[in-house]
Amino acid sequence: MDNLEFDHHISRRYNDELNELRNHVLLMGGLVQEQLRKAIDAVVTGDSELGLKVAHDDYKVNDMEVKIDEECSNILVRRAPAAMDLRLIVAVIKTITDLERIGDEAEKIGFLASRLAAMEQPKDNYRELRNLGLHVLRMLEDTLNTLSELDVEKARQVILEDERVDEEYDAINRQCLTFMMEDPASIKRVMNITWAARALERIGDHAKNICEYVIYLVLGKDIRHTEDPDILSTQ
Amino acid sequence: MDNLEFDHHISRRYNDELNELRNHVLLMGGLVQEQLRKAIDAVVTGDSELGLKVAHDDYKVNDMEVKIDEECSNILVRRAPAAMDLRLIVAVIKTITDLERIGDEAEKIGFLASRLAAMEQPKDNYRELRNLGLHVLRMLEDTLNTLSELDVEKARQVILEDERVDEEYDAINRQCLTFMMEDPASIKRVMNITWAARALERIGDHAKNICEYVIYLVLGKDIRHTEDPDILSTQ
Repeated sequence: MDNLEFDHHISRRYNDELNELRNHVLLMGGLVQEQLRKAIDAVVTGDSELGLKVAHDDYKVNDMEVKIDEECSNILVRRAPAAMDLRLIVAVIKTITDLERIGDEAEKIGFLASRLAAMEQPKDNYRELRNLGLHVLRMLEDTLNTLSELDVEKARQVILEDERVDEEYDAINRQCLTFMMEDPASIKRVMNITWAARALERIGDHAKNICEYVIYLVLGKDIRHTEDPDILSTQ
Repeated sequence: MDNLEFDHHISRRYNDELNELRNHVLLMGGLVQEQLRKAIDAVVTGDSELGLKVAHDDYKVNDMEVKIDEECSNILVRRAPAAMDLRLIVAVIKTITDLERIGDEAEKIGFLASRLAAMEQPKDNYRELRNLGLHVLRMLEDTLNTLSELDVEKARQVILEDERVDEEYDAINRQCLTFMMEDPASIKRVMNITWAARALERIGDHAKNICEYVIYLVLGKDIRHTEDPDILSTQ
């Protein structure tokens, strides 16, 4: 995140605390991104061991959430922040909840990868699922950049991108329905694919949430649940 | 919530603000509960109109979230709360996020009810789905009581209850798989049932989250992501 905005305190120590906090959130984001990348890899390559490793490593994400939460409470108590500083703390409290949930979804995908690895690998190596996964991974990457640069314009783009992720998810769902109807023997396997697609779709939602917090942080307005075209427009 | 704990401020106005805040959270919880109850009804009775009404009314839940969020920010800025008061504010910020997500899941169930109403109604009137729905509804009710009474013991019970909800959800999933394999013509309908069951299972997760915040609020310890039997035990 842009250091300038938070470098205005007379207390050098307070500045450091806010900067550290932001760095910790970005580190947590990086870890979550890595977990998602591995989970997608595990599905596509049919690597059961990698899938289980992702699931096992979820505790690292959880630990980071608890620590950052404590950091926020400490700053609130000792510094009684106001205005943009306060919005930063509130945005961080919300952001790490969504990052933790993204971690949970990556964990689920890890388990599903390990189950799918024990079944017949399809000829297309889960092409559609892989495409959706890469799309969501890119969205998460953009979200972390948005968070790092406090870039409202980028945040708006990610929010709009979520609609395309939803469309892709709907298409996979329709395809899965067709597969199951044409070949009832595939139902068990295909159901696992729909769960994985669902987890990816939810990660898109969480990324969108985080971008909404960034806009709230920078502009001081809450754009959640709004359809106001002015707020979402790129103008 | 028990008024005694938050009635210790010299400023009468500050006491009032904290009490109002807690009342608003409980009102939001009541609305969400009502939405869930209607959504389950809509599925079981095949009432498409009621399902769509639930989906349409979700904006009311969202509006309450935004307003309570602002209330929290205002109190943080003007009162710089510490200790238990601060934990209350942080717990409220997190709680309303989960309540809002429960509202989203109820909205989804509303849409699914309207789709299912257009399909053949099964002889058992979705008995299993109804049972899971009532189970989750009871869990949500207990969660709101936990929140109202700040009852750590009740919070622990709800957290343990979530495991039973998960088991019930798994059983429905297995049953749905069997249905689809035995009767591929039912796949479309049964998929809608699995989505509804999934939404109910997620509501259980959100209720559990809220109970964890209550324990954090009262005891000042973060029990998320812990398997520590002492913390979760009923002793």
